Amino acid sequence: MHTIPQLQKLITDALAVKKYGSTPVELYEPIDYIMSLGGKRLRPCLVLMACDLFGGDVDQAIQPALAIEVFHNFTLMHDDIMDKAPLRRGKQTVHEKWNPNIAILAGDVMMVEANKLMMQVNDSILRQVLDTFNDTAVGVCEGQQIDMNFETQDNVDIAAYVNMIRLKTAVLLGGALKIGAIIGGAGADDASLLYDFGVQLGIAFQLQDDILDVYGDPEKFGKQVGGDILSNKKTFLLIKALELAQGDTLTELNHWLSATDYNPAEKVAAVKAIYNQLSVKEQAEEEMNKYARMAISNLRWIGLDEERKSIIAHFADDLLVREH
Amino acid sequence: MHTIPQLQKLITDALAVKKYGSTPVELYEPIDYIMSLGGKRLRPCLVLMACDLFGGDVDQAIQPALAIEVFHNFTLMHDDIMDKAPLRRGKQTVHEKWNPNIAILAGDVMMVEANKLMMQVNDSILRQVLDTFNDTAVGVCEGQQIDMNFETQDNVDIAAYVNMIRLKTAVLLGGALKIGAIIGGAGADDASLLYDFGVQLGIAFQLQDDILDVYGDPEKFGKQVGGDILSNKKTFLLIKALELAQGDTLTELNHWLSATDYNPAEKVAAVKAIYNQLSVKEQAEEEMNKYARMAISNLRWIGLDEERKSIIAHFADDLLVREH
Repeated sequence: MHTIPQLQKLITDALAVKKYGSTPVELYEPIDYIMSLGGKRLRPCLVLMACDLFGGDVDQAIQPALAIEVFHNFTLMHDDIMDKAPLRRGKQTVHEKWNPNIAILAGDVMMVEANKLMMQVNDSILRQVLDTFNDTAVGVCEGQQIDMNFETQDNVDIAAYVNMIRLKTAVLLGGALKIGAIIGGAGADDASLLYDFGVQLGIAFQLQDDILDVYGDPEKFGKQVGGDILSNKKTFLLIKALELAQGDTLTELNHWLSATDYNPAEKVAAVKAIYNQLSVKEQAEEEMNKYARMAISNLRWIGLDEERKSIIAHFADDLLVREH
Repeated sequence: MHTIPQLQKLITDALAVKKYGSTPVELYEPIDYIMSLGGKRLRPCLVLMACDLFGGDVDQAIQPALAIEVFHNFTLMHDDIMDKAPLRRGKQTVHEKWNPNIAILAGDVMMVEANKLMMQVNDSILRQVLDTFNDTAVGVCEGQQIDMNFETQDNVDIAAYVNMIRLKTAVLLGGALKIGAIIGGAGADDASLLYDFGVQLGIAFQLQDDILDVYGDPEKFGKQVGGDILSNKKTFLLIKALELAQGDTLTELNHWLSATDYNPAEKVAAVKAIYNQLSVKEQAEEEMNKYARMAISNLRWIGLDEERKSIIAHFADDLLVREH
């Protein structure tokens, strides 16, 4: 078994030598650029980790792992256009540095590149791996559309929200693990259990992100704390607060949601005070812990010895106490 | 062997019952919409025709043929955003009818859908089919980027132009034929010859389109005759004219290219007169015929009887005398 840092090094080494194409340069420079912006490389690591867990040869999982990372960055490139985001990991987004047309087309070719990388598996598992990948990709697109719909939708409830983050964020973690498991030689049942583990962990992970966006340590969080509040983003916290608030509290919350001229720090502090009053942080943590427990419970049925399974359980624990 | 109308009917029948997904509707309605706009369904027909040519079961080629048509429409949906095109086949483009974000995301999910459809082949040829499809898709993206580069590029020569149309238009015709051939049981050499036939035919087809945009019968052409002249599009005709024009003719051509305030009919007539003076139409026809002959010459080496090969040769002839 490899340690997480060992697996991460395999990914960064493989990414460092990966070439995406040469001409026309306008198409391939943005790909080199976004892929070089870094990040935790969590998703490709999950592919290797799952392969390793089932005793597979992690070298055989490296190109499919890169496929997951290229696919993830393709979705970020297109999402940033849709969100008109100026920055990604503190650097200019591709549509800002070049233009939206280049970001559309470079994203498209990344999707094809991801497919090519994903095909670098044995013939005997090719169809199973690609089916998993395609289902995952459809889910991610559906999740992004539902998220965009939420921006103009009044009645978003917790169930709809959890379904959105399941599709937009969690199925890719599940898909990465399942693909790694298949490459590692896991049977269909075990691969499916690891997929469910990944999806539920992914939901917990996103709920934690919602909490950290309001309650995180600004030194460690990486993004602007309070960003979700300022953009009225329908997170678990806001949806729950709108569900629970009554009387003056509801009036005040709605005032801040419709305010156009305000002091940002004042809005963040006021909405946070309402969240505190309604204990929505505690409820988000409870929901997060529920999904984390559900995730872990899948591991019980996987046909591996406890020591191996404890590695992935510890990984889940580590992921959910991060402060950035 | 099937006739072309029989194959076209197989495609339209399969498209009529094809479902792309249901929720969120914002993602799938634009797909149903663009797929229902019609068109000649040339590319999926090539898949069936190639399969039929090698004695394959055309029913087994229908889903991969739809994959090619879905992929083609995905590229149209994204190209229309990049070109800010208001109309496609006389109807509103997706980014106009909905918005650019929806057109980006619906296009993305169409790309995944195309992959899923393309996987509906036997395991024994799955890798070969997908490799061909991925290489084709990369080529189409590269061609679109080179075409966008041409808009702001001063020195585009004929070789660069032919390379652009090879990638943007022709490789998809070649890819469609090669995939059909593989499904039909063709050997690697025959599949490759049919690919080359398709690419060269595609170049001839695009050169004919350049000619028809200026010299076509407005009743039959479908698009606005003179559209390329009005948008200063760098077609074979314009590139050749800029190469040949001298003295006053060159001055006049450059005047029209830089003019901002003009009568459209006057500009079309004036540029067409320059084309006539320089005989660029005849040179475009010569180039078109050269590629048509090269296309047909590949057929000689394909291991099929002459009668079968004559069907595809006649198809090429028919394609190149169209006036619309």
